Amino acid sequence: MHYHDWEAFCVEPLTPELGQEVVLRVRTPARKGLLVFEQGGELERKPLQAVSGGLEARIAMHASPLRYCFYLEAERVYLTSAGVSPTLPRYDRFFHLLAQPSVPEWAVGAVFYQIFPDRFRNGNPHNDPQSGQWLYGGKPIIKKGWDEPVAPREGALQHYGGDLEGITQSLDYLQALGIEALYLTPIFPSPSSHRYDASDYHRVDPHLGGEAAFDRLVQALHQRGMRLVLDGVFNHIGNTHPDFQKALSDPTSPEAGMFTFHADGSYAAFYGVKTLPKLDYANPLTVERWVDGPKAPLRYWLRRGADGWRLDVAHQIGEGGTNRKNLELLRQMHRNSREEALEALVFGELSFDTTETLRAHTLDGSMHYAGFAHPVMEWLCGQNVLGWKVQVSTPALWETLWDHYAALPLQIRQAMYTLIGSHDIPRPLWRLRGDTERMKLALGLLFAFPGSPGLYYGDEIGLNQANPYDLFNGDPMCRGTFPWDEARWNPELLSWTKQLIHLKKSVPALRRGGLQPLEVREGLLGFKRLYAGEEVWVYAALEPHLVRLPPVQDLLTGEETSGWVRVQGLGLYRLRS
Amino acid sequence: MHYHDWEAFCVEPLTPELGQEVVLRVRTPARKGLLVFEQGGELERKPLQAVSGGLEARIAMHASPLRYCFYLEAERVYLTSAGVSPTLPRYDRFFHLLAQPSVPEWAVGAVFYQIFPDRFRNGNPHNDPQSGQWLYGGKPIIKKGWDEPVAPREGALQHYGGDLEGITQSLDYLQALGIEALYLTPIFPSPSSHRYDASDYHRVDPHLGGEAAFDRLVQALHQRGMRLVLDGVFNHIGNTHPDFQKALSDPTSPEAGMFTFHADGSYAAFYGVKTLPKLDYANPLTVERWVDGPKAPLRYWLRRGADGWRLDVAHQIGEGGTNRKNLELLRQMHRNSREEALEALVFGELSFDTTETLRAHTLDGSMHYAGFAHPVMEWLCGQNVLGWKVQVSTPALWETLWDHYAALPLQIRQAMYTLIGSHDIPRPLWRLRGDTERMKLALGLLFAFPGSPGLYYGDEIGLNQANPYDLFNGDPMCRGTFPWDEARWNPELLSWTKQLIHLKKSVPALRRGGLQPLEVREGLLGFKRLYAGEEVWVYAALEPHLVRLPPVQDLLTGEETSGWVRVQGLGLYRLRS
Repeated sequence: MHYHDWEAFCVEPLTPELGQEVVLRVRTPARKGLLVFEQGGELERKPLQAVSGGLEARIAMHASPLRYCFYLEAERVYLTSAGVSPTLPRYDRFFHLLAQPSVPEWAVGAVFYQIFPDRFRNGNPHNDPQSGQWLYGGKPIIKKGWDEPVAPREGALQHYGGDLEGITQSLDYLQALGIEALYLTPIFPSPSSHRYDASDYHRVDPHLGGEAAFDRLVQALHQRGMRLVLDGVFNHIGNTHPDFQKALSDPTSPEAGMFTFHADGSYAAFYGVKTLPKLDYANPLTVERWVDGPKAPLRYWLRRGADGWRLDVAHQIGEGGTNRKNLELLRQMHRNSREEALEALVFGELSFDTTETLRAHTLDGSMHYAGFAHPVMEWLCGQNVLGWKVQVSTPALWETLWDHYAALPLQIRQAMYTLIGSHDIPRPLWRLRGDTERMKLALGLLFAFPGSPGLYYGDEIGLNQANPYDLFNGDPMCRGTFPWDEARWNPELLSWTKQLIHLKKSVPALRRGGLQPLEVREGLLGFKRLYAGEEVWVYAALEPHLVRLPPVQDLLTGEETSGWVRVQGLGLYRLRS
Repeated sequence: MHYHDWEAFCVEPLTPELGQEVVLRVRTPARKGLLVFEQGGELERKPLQAVSGGLEARIAMHASPLRYCFYLEAERVYLTSAGVSPTLPRYDRFFHLLAQPSVPEWAVGAVFYQIFPDRFRNGNPHNDPQSGQWLYGGKPIIKKGWDEPVAPREGALQHYGGDLEGITQSLDYLQALGIEALYLTPIFPSPSSHRYDASDYHRVDPHLGGEAAFDRLVQALHQRGMRLVLDGVFNHIGNTHPDFQKALSDPTSPEAGMFTFHADGSYAAFYGVKTLPKLDYANPLTVERWVDGPKAPLRYWLRRGADGWRLDVAHQIGEGGTNRKNLELLRQMHRNSREEALEALVFGELSFDTTETLRAHTLDGSMHYAGFAHPVMEWLCGQNVLGWKVQVSTPALWETLWDHYAALPLQIRQAMYTLIGSHDIPRPLWRLRGDTERMKLALGLLFAFPGSPGLYYGDEIGLNQANPYDLFNGDPMCRGTFPWDEARWNPELLSWTKQLIHLKKSVPALRRGGLQPLEVREGLLGFKRLYAGEEVWVYAALEPHLVRLPPVQDLLTGEETSGWVRVQGLGLYRLRS
């Protein structure tokens, strides 16, 4: 009934500059009301003017985020980011509108594909690592055959030979699938197969094909209008990195100040893992060398053609072995990236509640674990990522999704890196015990919910993982190789995924529409996606449910229908105007 | 069923120092679970140990606030500040525990009495201002007779002659009422009768009796074990203050840098009111002269015997005509106050959502407008402070109260300056159209809800105000004189208030107990107060409602009862163990 979200009717311009006047509109039958906004710690009020379809006020972007809500006079309610309230809401529930720079246009609702390079495709067997070629953690690395299963206890010692050339060779496949952007886990030289412990931030691992393969991949992607996002590991580096080796060997070196050493000679490291010494951004040299200087890798790879960064453990980055100055540093990383590439996308891992960080006008978004992947998968499979049993009712699921959505700044809501699987959590199909129908529903929610869906390589063809999954011991089992033998694919999942991607890209309400509640009962989650007058009703039904529809087009079948309809799994209905 | 709040069982010590180990306990039948806490941007987990009555974990106060929640394994729920959740909550709903310094012990649940000095009692007619004695806003001031009504259009020109001597003479009355602390609106020399535009921060207005009367008042209060909180107007000063006059007359003077002048010679002022130039804390001289230096009034009056400050428009204080560096400045004001007086209480006006400011470990609390006064009075009278009609249902009332309560840091929950009336909002009895029963219910909620209740002078004897009330034109009508002719008092309200104050002070669950939901239906608000095993059930019923009670003592009658009971107005029942 009363609606405000990130679309041209409601926010004009959509990406205002600081200081610029912005028109804020509510789509509403109400004819009188106030804009209530925070300025300098005080709440101010400004009358809303009636316009066709709603109410509006003009206001300068005096801060970022601009925090506001609407008061509707006849209804005597505040329209907040979480719904209507008869009492003034806490700031937590104000709308948060960011000034520029925020999410680049290309990334809004874009379809991503995440690749763990060692495991996706071996395009050039000549650059494969060989068993015993070097030691990692004192043990010789292991070259495995492509179809050999991942061994839980062999962890990051296992190398399969996947490389960038393999990705380049797969672009026809990916483009046919509908993918618009790739997110690669780290590609810089590292002794481990996950490569989160880089020894050099200015080269591409020769086992991935080196810089030449990188340049070819970038060129091939850009020729197809596709984008490339790299994994930026700027919280810690590998202990084999020369800077850390210098710091270890010479305590008087400038490099020694780039890390946080303790009295006993130990040092701050990612979760205490000694191979991952943490960068200390209290030292200007650290900032200069990684983030700010002309040769800083953050800048370098954007100049060389990357389209953005996914910042690893962005929430931990900071000074003195802590996350002190985290927000300032993230802001600086974002700003520097934009200096190098006007349309760079910079989002964070942000494993937990992302909203504080994103409201502070830092990054363009984040992996959507807390506000999407975790609650959705817990609802669908009854277990959390650690394998503990959980009981998430459908109302609790909706409450969690809505709570995070409403808390996000407007520009970020449709561009969160939204996922059901990644290199860090179990494969969704495995969590769903191989249930294809549930997997289709998981994929359905991934593409029907607001955000930029990030498909983890292989999920679209039913790639599963071996038991047991144990996050804390050994290598996550979700990093198996992609089977290029199509006989091993699940064609139903693949065509389903293609259909969902097509809908995501062709239906504006699915790609950039706002979210509104629709209907929730146990086992049935219904929500609306709204954009520029278009309205799509989305249902996710764990078992068959009857729902009552206005005249709609069923987006999955193309048929027109209305009245009582039986929904099982995913239902997608576009209202006929 | 699962309970965590600010009491010795749950938090030990109650006011830990930064770095100190603290024991966090949940009162619960659960036998297994985890403490989930934020550290350095990451969520950490620590097993809870079963102890008599609940579960506990020990953890160092590595930050202030420490943010945490509990995971209860068998129940598969998180216990958050807002209740239980099957999914990980946003940080907004984590418990926030502050390190020292936080609220001084004396102020927890203490009963305050707010006095507007010109209007409470004229103890010394010889120091009264005389009509025409000076000009204010170009008009001669007016000396009114004590029983003359406040005239809306005469605003702050009207002086009634109340003074500190009058307050000292009334201490028997106030102490018999049960008052423990006074909060006085400004007492420094000012041309207006509200005195928010001081011309000197080191003297007491001679029309209030000057410093000698202040010293006598302090001495008399302290002899009775009572406390004195002053109104600290550090956001702006009066334009007659010599520093501002100097700034005006000499742009090269150091004083000129203490204000924010614009190109056209205008200057930043409180809501643009030219008599209230805003202090610019970007200038070190401003910080030195008002807040930090040895002679700064913030320090001076605490040394001279005041027990604390209520910081006027604390949310606006900042640099460059804005609230920039607001949190840092409030923290500094708090720290400096504690340096001068170990037990100083410093709370803010904080007119809107207080929780962001208070979670940032700044002040000891705030006036509880957004989280108490506004929603409660809107519920009771159907109008907001501006006189607009509002419709706050009982569930919406509870949601608002609970939302703010849950968001507050633990140490602050029982010490918010909780109110139904003040010098800035209409008299509650007037808003309730003189309805004594409703007024008794408003007072009942004031004393039964968590917090330090602040009674506005005269509300206890039924002081009303003339119509019309217009906040934006003229003097708020709520500043009428206290009628010392007891024949004009409402004895029923007075004895009711005395009883409530007695209960607040004698029943620990009312004074320092936590809040828990009990029962809410339209027209009936029920909640629990819990402390150290004691449990009080509070009901506020707009019309008669039947409620079912376990064996209880009716705290208002002293009688024991149980089963179905009819409640109208306030019900207060202590569970029998």
